[in-house]
Amino acid sequence: MNKITVGFLGLGVVGAELVNIIRVNQETIIRNYGVKVEIGKIFIRDMNKKRGTDISSLQLTTNVEEVIDDNEIDIICECMGGAGTEKTKEYIIRSINNNKSIIMSSKKTLAYYGKDIIPLAGESEIDLRYDATVGGGIPIAKILTSCFKGESITKIVGILNATSNFIYSKMENDVVSFKEALKEAQSLGYAENDPTEDIGGFDSLYKGIILAVFAMNKWVDVNQLSTTPFSTISLTDMNYALELGYSIKPLVIFKNSNGTLLYRIGPCLIKKDHIVANTSDNYNMIVIEGSNSGVLGFYGQGAGSLPTASAMFDDLISIIEKNNNDHFNSKLKQIKNFNNVEEYNNSLYWRLTVKNVIGNLSRITAIFSSYKINIEKLIQKNEQKNTVDVVLLTSRIELNQLSNLTDELNSFDSKVESIIPFFED
Amino acid sequence: MNKITVGFLGLGVVGAELVNIIRVNQETIIRNYGVKVEIGKIFIRDMNKKRGTDISSLQLTTNVEEVIDDNEIDIICECMGGAGTEKTKEYIIRSINNNKSIIMSSKKTLAYYGKDIIPLAGESEIDLRYDATVGGGIPIAKILTSCFKGESITKIVGILNATSNFIYSKMENDVVSFKEALKEAQSLGYAENDPTEDIGGFDSLYKGIILAVFAMNKWVDVNQLSTTPFSTISLTDMNYALELGYSIKPLVIFKNSNGTLLYRIGPCLIKKDHIVANTSDNYNMIVIEGSNSGVLGFYGQGAGSLPTASAMFDDLISIIEKNNNDHFNSKLKQIKNFNNVEEYNNSLYWRLTVKNVIGNLSRITAIFSSYKINIEKLIQKNEQKNTVDVVLLTSRIELNQLSNLTDELNSFDSKVESIIPFFED
Repeated sequence: MNKITVGFLGLGVVGAELVNIIRVNQETIIRNYGVKVEIGKIFIRDMNKKRGTDISSLQLTTNVEEVIDDNEIDIICECMGGAGTEKTKEYIIRSINNNKSIIMSSKKTLAYYGKDIIPLAGESEIDLRYDATVGGGIPIAKILTSCFKGESITKIVGILNATSNFIYSKMENDVVSFKEALKEAQSLGYAENDPTEDIGGFDSLYKGIILAVFAMNKWVDVNQLSTTPFSTISLTDMNYALELGYSIKPLVIFKNSNGTLLYRIGPCLIKKDHIVANTSDNYNMIVIEGSNSGVLGFYGQGAGSLPTASAMFDDLISIIEKNNNDHFNSKLKQIKNFNNVEEYNNSLYWRLTVKNVIGNLSRITAIFSSYKINIEKLIQKNEQKNTVDVVLLTSRIELNQLSNLTDELNSFDSKVESIIPFFED
Repeated sequence: MNKITVGFLGLGVVGAELVNIIRVNQETIIRNYGVKVEIGKIFIRDMNKKRGTDISSLQLTTNVEEVIDDNEIDIICECMGGAGTEKTKEYIIRSINNNKSIIMSSKKTLAYYGKDIIPLAGESEIDLRYDATVGGGIPIAKILTSCFKGESITKIVGILNATSNFIYSKMENDVVSFKEALKEAQSLGYAENDPTEDIGGFDSLYKGIILAVFAMNKWVDVNQLSTTPFSTISLTDMNYALELGYSIKPLVIFKNSNGTLLYRIGPCLIKKDHIVANTSDNYNMIVIEGSNSGVLGFYGQGAGSLPTASAMFDDLISIIEKNNNDHFNSKLKQIKNFNNVEEYNNSLYWRLTVKNVIGNLSRITAIFSSYKINIEKLIQKNEQKNTVDVVLLTSRIELNQLSNLTDELNSFDSKVESIIPFFED
């Protein structure tokens, strides 16, 4: 009988869960594939930490070389979490050079160093799997590997960060502030103590880059992109949006427009009846547009160590089955950059606080019109003694004009509180 | 260079579209896989019919044996549409016996004769692919083949018939009757002239059976199941449902409850904020529950020859890539029947027309209570001179009591207009 030895980098919640799934399925794998999966050496950093699996028979080591240089190990399961992105890259590259297949889970490493890792894997005989890095429980990598063969993908839109989506859903449903909703997410374990990666949009950015490279075969560096933090949304905007028939969602938009990347990582207004607007709680949704397949949407739970470990287990079986990834490799021996990178530019939602004085509204509309911006809707709301909320829906504006326009609006009796783009199909 | 010859059964819209995709991608396939795909003999029934592709270089024949017995042909693309289910089965079985791989598109054939076809394919060296039979553009077969490896699937819920979903969406959005919405679906090409298969629920039934066998590895015969036609829904029910916070959707529910199949193919009320309730127009949604992956949803366009042909092309590439389907085969050499088959039983929505006479309401509630059925909500609506609509939400009822209860309700001043179950997660 064939034997395959699996080594581990890291044994946190995901790694421990994966060990459990492998153990439970060992007999089934032997029966179905005639392969015995053995768990080999496991690199951990702290020998004294409690683990989510029985470690009595595991070979734990704090020396990473015992794993990545071990000739016995065929496949490396990388479960490093967010820790030490650059180190993780080095371990992976050395493992590939040592002819080991890789099952990745660190999205940050893949987003930062994919341009080094992916072509190296493509040139080699090894297999690189990454389904745990993006989409939570959604098997998006396997879908991208086995579908869209005779067509090209030009657009990816989605909710890739379940934490932020949970917070937004909470705000919308329970009419609570971002802060309160974040607190609840933290108490439920959906958000980390330091939630920056999630609510700052960075987690979404990494995942967007990974999807772009595998779906569109184009590369963009992390530092070429900026995010609008999801935490910039207030309940006031959410309520006005709902009144207008829109939800505000923590979106990622990646569009290949003849080699130019149009992107947005930040809050967007999206029509209430759109399938993405109806993706709530801690769920992800990835919408992909193929020239033949049309619009496809993939929905699944975002957070959770079990779905993540389950995705890695499916990756492991794919490698055992020797699901041919020639196509994957040949396509990815060379990855080209996008020619240009531009922020997605669309109609805008504006909220201004304006001094409640006759004539102010016409001054505001005059300023917009001096920039040749069309006002499609204007609503006054929440009239107070001295101020009033003015909500405007306007046509798109060249992004380099945005700060001048905002300065001008802020320079007299009004203050721009928020500017949020609309997502349109 | 390797050569693969592809024969066709049928050259309707899907077959013609597939020929086009193969032609466009011929060079790419050579580059990526080193394989030349040749289009071999094509079985058609009518030499004079116009075709959606240039036929000047194609080898058309009205003799099916020239295709299924041709030693040159490696792969058969079955594009027979709904025509001649039993004949199609015979052609496929003979092709498998002649050692040809099969790419199927006829859902009816697979649903009726899968128990013959699938184990035969499983025992042989050939490859059977079926992604075009279910889910429209959704690559559900590829997802089932490459995911859920270490877990079991116990529930499939979805909208599998895009035509009926389009009609329901039209009714809900435009406040038009089923008939009017059907007419519009026909004029747009979303519904056939004879829409029985779609609106009667049979198309959904076939697809449900196919998903059950590949996801749950269990078989059920078409004639063991009954459908509640989607056409039984009136605008009145749809509006009352909306008022109560529900959408009515044309659902398929397949649940493996310890070997017993609980199923429903028919309209159901489903909470307005559920992802399935927000699947509109001519879209499909398939929701699958795995023990590790959690709830996953797959969304895509239902109708259309291009998505269908595109799914078949992906199947073709999978065969060329020799994506190992050992697991698929070993699992499906034997398919066991469900132990029992029962209709899904849940809380119910009732609409009655009741003579507007004092005391009638208490008679109705007394009848329900004599059956030990709990009334969770009761609403009187649309009071006319002589009648009133009574809408009740009740607890579940043993299905064998349903007709007695209905008879009793109909036996005096009231008439049961509709009974629709709720879908609950």
